[in-house]
Amino acid sequence: MKNTIGNSLTVTLFGESHGKAIGAVLDGMPSGIKVDEEYIASQLTRRRPKDALSTPRQEKDEFSILSGVFEGRTTGTPICITIPNADTHSSDYGEMQYKMRPSHADYTANCRYNGFQDYRGGGHFSGRITAALVAAGALVLPALNKKGICINTNILSVAGETAEEKRNEKILAAKSEGDSVGGVLETLITGVPAGVGEPWFDTVEGMLSHAIFSIPAVKGIEFGLGFNFADKKGSEANDQMYADGDSVKCYTNNNGGVMGGITNGMPIVFRTVIKPTPTISKEQKTVDISTMQNTTISARGRHDPCIVHRASVVVESVTALVIADMLSAKYGTDWLAK
Amino acid sequence: MKNTIGNSLTVTLFGESHGKAIGAVLDGMPSGIKVDEEYIASQLTRRRPKDALSTPRQEKDEFSILSGVFEGRTTGTPICITIPNADTHSSDYGEMQYKMRPSHADYTANCRYNGFQDYRGGGHFSGRITAALVAAGALVLPALNKKGICINTNILSVAGETAEEKRNEKILAAKSEGDSVGGVLETLITGVPAGVGEPWFDTVEGMLSHAIFSIPAVKGIEFGLGFNFADKKGSEANDQMYADGDSVKCYTNNNGGVMGGITNGMPIVFRTVIKPTPTISKEQKTVDISTMQNTTISARGRHDPCIVHRASVVVESVTALVIADMLSAKYGTDWLAK
Amino acid sequence: MKNTIGNSLTVTLFGESHGKAIGAVLDGMPSGIKVDEEYIASQLTRRRPKDALSTPRQEKDEFSILSGVFEGRTTGTPICITIPNADTHSSDYGEMQYKMRPSHADYTANCRYNGFQDYRGGGHFSGRITAALVAAGALVLPALNKKGICINTNILSVAGETAEEKRNEKILAAKSEGDSVGGVLETLITGVPAGVGEPWFDTVEGMLSHAIFSIPAVKGIEFGLGFNFADKKGSEANDQMYADGDSVKCYTNNNGGVMGGITNGMPIVFRTVIKPTPTISKEQKTVDISTMQNTTISARGRHDPCIVHRASVVVESVTALVIADMLSAKYGTDWLAK
Amino acid sequence: MKNTIGNSLTVTLFGESHGKAIGAVLDGMPSGIKVDEEYIASQLTRRRPKDALSTPRQEKDEFSILSGVFEGRTTGTPICITIPNADTHSSDYGEMQYKMRPSHADYTANCRYNGFQDYRGGGHFSGRITAALVAAGALVLPALNKKGICINTNILSVAGETAEEKRNEKILAAKSEGDSVGGVLETLITGVPAGVGEPWFDTVEGMLSHAIFSIPAVKGIEFGLGFNFADKKGSEANDQMYADGDSVKCYTNNNGGVMGGITNGMPIVFRTVIKPTPTISKEQKTVDISTMQNTTISARGRHDPCIVHRASVVVESVTALVIADMLSAKYGTDWLAK
Repeated sequence: MKNTIGNSLTVTLFGESHGKAIGAVLDGMPSGIKVDEEYIASQLTRRRPKDALSTPRQEKDEFSILSGVFEGRTTGTPICITIPNADTHSSDYGEMQYKMRPSHADYTANCRYNGFQDYRGGGHFSGRITAALVAAGALVLPALNKKGICINTNILSVAGETAEEKRNEKILAAKSEGDSVGGVLETLITGVPAGVGEPWFDTVEGMLSHAIFSIPAVKGIEFGLGFNFADKKGSEANDQMYADGDSVKCYTNNNGGVMGGITNGMPIVFRTVIKPTPTISKEQKTVDISTMQNTTISARGRHDPCIVHRASVVVESVTALVIADMLSAKYGTDWLAK
Repeated sequence: MKNTIGNSLTVTLFGESHGKAIGAVLDGMPSGIKVDEEYIASQLTRRRPKDALSTPRQEKDEFSILSGVFEGRTTGTPICITIPNADTHSSDYGEMQYKMRPSHADYTANCRYNGFQDYRGGGHFSGRITAALVAAGALVLPALNKKGICINTNILSVAGETAEEKRNEKILAAKSEGDSVGGVLETLITGVPAGVGEPWFDTVEGMLSHAIFSIPAVKGIEFGLGFNFADKKGSEANDQMYADGDSVKCYTNNNGGVMGGITNGMPIVFRTVIKPTPTISKEQKTVDISTMQNTTISARGRHDPCIVHRASVVVESVTALVIADMLSAKYGTDWLAK
Repeated sequence: MKNTIGNSLTVTLFGESHGKAIGAVLDGMPSGIKVDEEYIASQLTRRRPKDALSTPRQEKDEFSILSGVFEGRTTGTPICITIPNADTHSSDYGEMQYKMRPSHADYTANCRYNGFQDYRGGGHFSGRITAALVAAGALVLPALNKKGICINTNILSVAGETAEEKRNEKILAAKSEGDSVGGVLETLITGVPAGVGEPWFDTVEGMLSHAIFSIPAVKGIEFGLGFNFADKKGSEANDQMYADGDSVKCYTNNNGGVMGGITNGMPIVFRTVIKPTPTISKEQKTVDISTMQNTTISARGRHDPCIVHRASVVVESVTALVIADMLSAKYGTDWLAK
Repeated sequence: MKNTIGNSLTVTLFGESHGKAIGAVLDGMPSGIKVDEEYIASQLTRRRPKDALSTPRQEKDEFSILSGVFEGRTTGTPICITIPNADTHSSDYGEMQYKMRPSHADYTANCRYNGFQDYRGGGHFSGRITAALVAAGALVLPALNKKGICINTNILSVAGETAEEKRNEKILAAKSEGDSVGGVLETLITGVPAGVGEPWFDTVEGMLSHAIFSIPAVKGIEFGLGFNFADKKGSEANDQMYADGDSVKCYTNNNGGVMGGITNGMPIVFRTVIKPTPTISKEQKTVDISTMQNTTISARGRHDPCIVHRASVVVESVTALVIADMLSAKYGTDWLAK
């Protein structure tokens, strides 16, 4: 499968940046769950570019639920949400049909789709498609919250800076130079009971990373201490345990809530690195694939100098979809509505 | 699904550390591929503990191919390989039935399987199960090589040390203290053509990480610059391109051969972090879950002070299975035999 | 999974009879295939009720392709087709919210979705949803034809009658009585090469039947002689073979082109039985589930006295999707565009 | 996927008729279920040929559980069962390497596997592989029974005869002529609650038929009235309903317990047709594919004049696996053990 993920609860993505609409089909939601359109809108707003830190492209993200919701509640059948594309400046992209933006998907899309891809605005590879993931996640998050499961993604750093003010300075500086910066996000999931996940393949880490890596610009993921485990001794790194009434807890959470691929009841913690936005206006060397000549490119179009802050709600949404899928598989398809 | 991975080429794992046998079913291999039992044996040898750096447990790993191979070639039907367990010292584990080893899967297995798991030697969570992955990978690797695809996993560091001599000193020092160390592996895949992978969900990064995270002790994965992207500007991090005859190449490979989830023809590069082996003989705080009393544990049994070097062939094998699966899906089920 | 089928080429259905729109996402189509909107429209017309033999409900089926098509060709990314619902008489269905139509999905939908289903016009169970299957099939059928694969579904009988005139008489007679009739369809697939299918589970018969049974009112499927095998001897039923140049052919085709789950190069032949439309205006005993009282029902709303002729294009479409999926898995994802 | 079926509870088959062993991996069984090896043996005995009605090949079917069972109960991890092949007369099959048995999988296997298949005794296509399905089913059936779900498959007819004595006469007569006969089986499933199944694709009928068609020689399946619906009117065929306390029942069960793809609480009823065993000793026309010359074949080897009675336990076993899978998906992975 390609643009579908999940076993018990599945999401199918579709759409291109400058096509009629983007959207998602969320299948496997149990019936009877309240659908809060204002919450969906507010999540989409969190993802939307705002102020000087982002692209000037302004989409209203006026989503439409085509199916699967009746009288304000899920029916249990597939929920198709579409978000029309409105504020498209396709003419900005004429040059880019053949001039491949370095580190963007332009060239790989061309290889994968033999030149037939909709190249305008990144097409199906555009970060814009993540709006559909956010909308799908917004159907699931309130139901998870009612189950006591909370998901939060915070910015750890941007361009090496951890303090918000400094981070924003870095973003604005990069913007003024026609450049871009990346950063690191940390996600915390609380309320997932111990015993969720599989020992092989469908580990918690494997399921989350499979989905998270489809968020554009993510290039790494680590759980708990992650790469910092490399320099630690077992005696330093192991999460020693104690009894807390009927349950077992850890003094530390170096494993980020997952051992042997399975949750241990501690908060699940992972970090994702977001690379600097590849589309920059600084001149770069590239190839015109229509002539196979070397050339340079200075990206036009409206672009983000940094997407770390916009990506946080996307990571939360994708995380919600994966966690809800794993729990629905374990506890049954109706569990989320109970 | 649980213990199966892959779409076109699938692997199903089974077995417990101290049960009759462990094994794997590899399904989707095309017919007519030569099966080199000596190569399989040599790969299993690479994984086996040897010398002072590893556990004294010595399994001969005398595998048996039960099906799917006829007259030295694959038949195209499922290949079941079993590896009997011989050198088991189950009595070493009596204490561990209820005393949970910190950072090991003991406690999560107990939560997941409600106390019915085979706790001896880590049961289904044992690193021993990776021998079956190595055997399955050894069926695939020579066929990939014939296609010009090579996979190599090297040790980048152990306990913070990069030079082999220093690394081994660190391991022996940890061993003498009843402690353990971790490290980082780097995998390089060459020969995969551009255009492999999907933009959403079944990205190269997502597919590989899904599988790689089931290797015990892996807690993080990063592609190309990985977490080092966080401090870079787009102009520094982007892989600028040039025409090389009919193909497009990059001056740098900061994206590790993958852009937009799809290969760009450059070598695929990723790193995995291996945490220090959780089972150590140093005393640690834990819980006896039969009484829910706090207690301490000093692991007996035969354990590895470091598994980084043993894990490298496992990472290669899993990588081979994932890459072969993706290529078989793209080019058809018989491609690997052509 | 629920509303998705296929491995290499997948279809996801969504929509309710009286909701905003129904639709399908077709994923896995290779890039570069011409999209013929007139052909799609003509296939939808074949499915649409016309004349006295069908329901008076007249939907224009003005479909919209939201994604995956650019400049008249497939891009290789998911194709979302939506068909808005226009001619809905929801008030016809008020009584039916609680009065379960015998043999319809009303009661089972209520059990499955706990009363939250969109009951209007059969909701997600409505035969109307098959319009989306027809649209998806219409994207695939011309590509299969170019590969020399043809799919035809013909009416074998309606209400026991084989001749068209008699069949139509039977339909009109049933209509005038407020009753309905069923029938049998036969599907012939030519041009599929020998060697397609799997010995276990993903047999040609298993893959086709899995999909075909989701067409409303299908209650049986048989391949080749089907149930007539029961009275035959092996010597009568076996398909004896002869050499025809480089290929092997059969004197008879009692196995309907499939042996051991795999195609033998002869035409694939199967028959499906379509039960009489359950919704009839004749009075029937049923239950009002809001009161759990016995009651009677005489269906209002606009219904088909027979759907056999409308179902034929649906069977063809679903068959096309399954065959294209199996061939795409075998020959690679780009095969259909080559 | 190929030799794996199921979503929540999966079965993977492997093995060839004359290889080392056949077997199955059953994954997704919850932990804590008692494993009754005597029951498994008794189910295998039901499948085994006995007396004059069957092949003289006598396999003891001494199965071995390699994994997933500890101290007499399931551990929750994959259960690998192997059954060694002992009584093989491979020399009987020398002629058959190139002479294709009409209506058998010999020719399609050769097309599918390019001549590399293990042709001895039908290889991976042999009915012998169904022993592994029976063993897997025998792990599931007692657990279903404890949940009040019973599955019975009875012989409806053999060679057109319904009475046992007549049926056996027909089989013996066919045997003496070197011929074979087929028949019809009927399966009844009681105890499945209303509301199981999906409206599209993963219908009860679709899921069962997908799996059932992999049983060798099955060529048709019908639910409830099945093909007899074709001549009925809606008013005759519809299952009218009445209230029975809190539940809704039907006066008739023409739909075989499934409406709209979903169970209605009535017994699930389906029939499968088993074609006459293709391997017969009567002379038949065929092709020698090594020379592409026309020739004749009179099968040697030990064959069944009829497999209808042996197939009944296979149908029951496969049905159990499908039903348990669907219920595990709906009610959660641990449901079967609760």
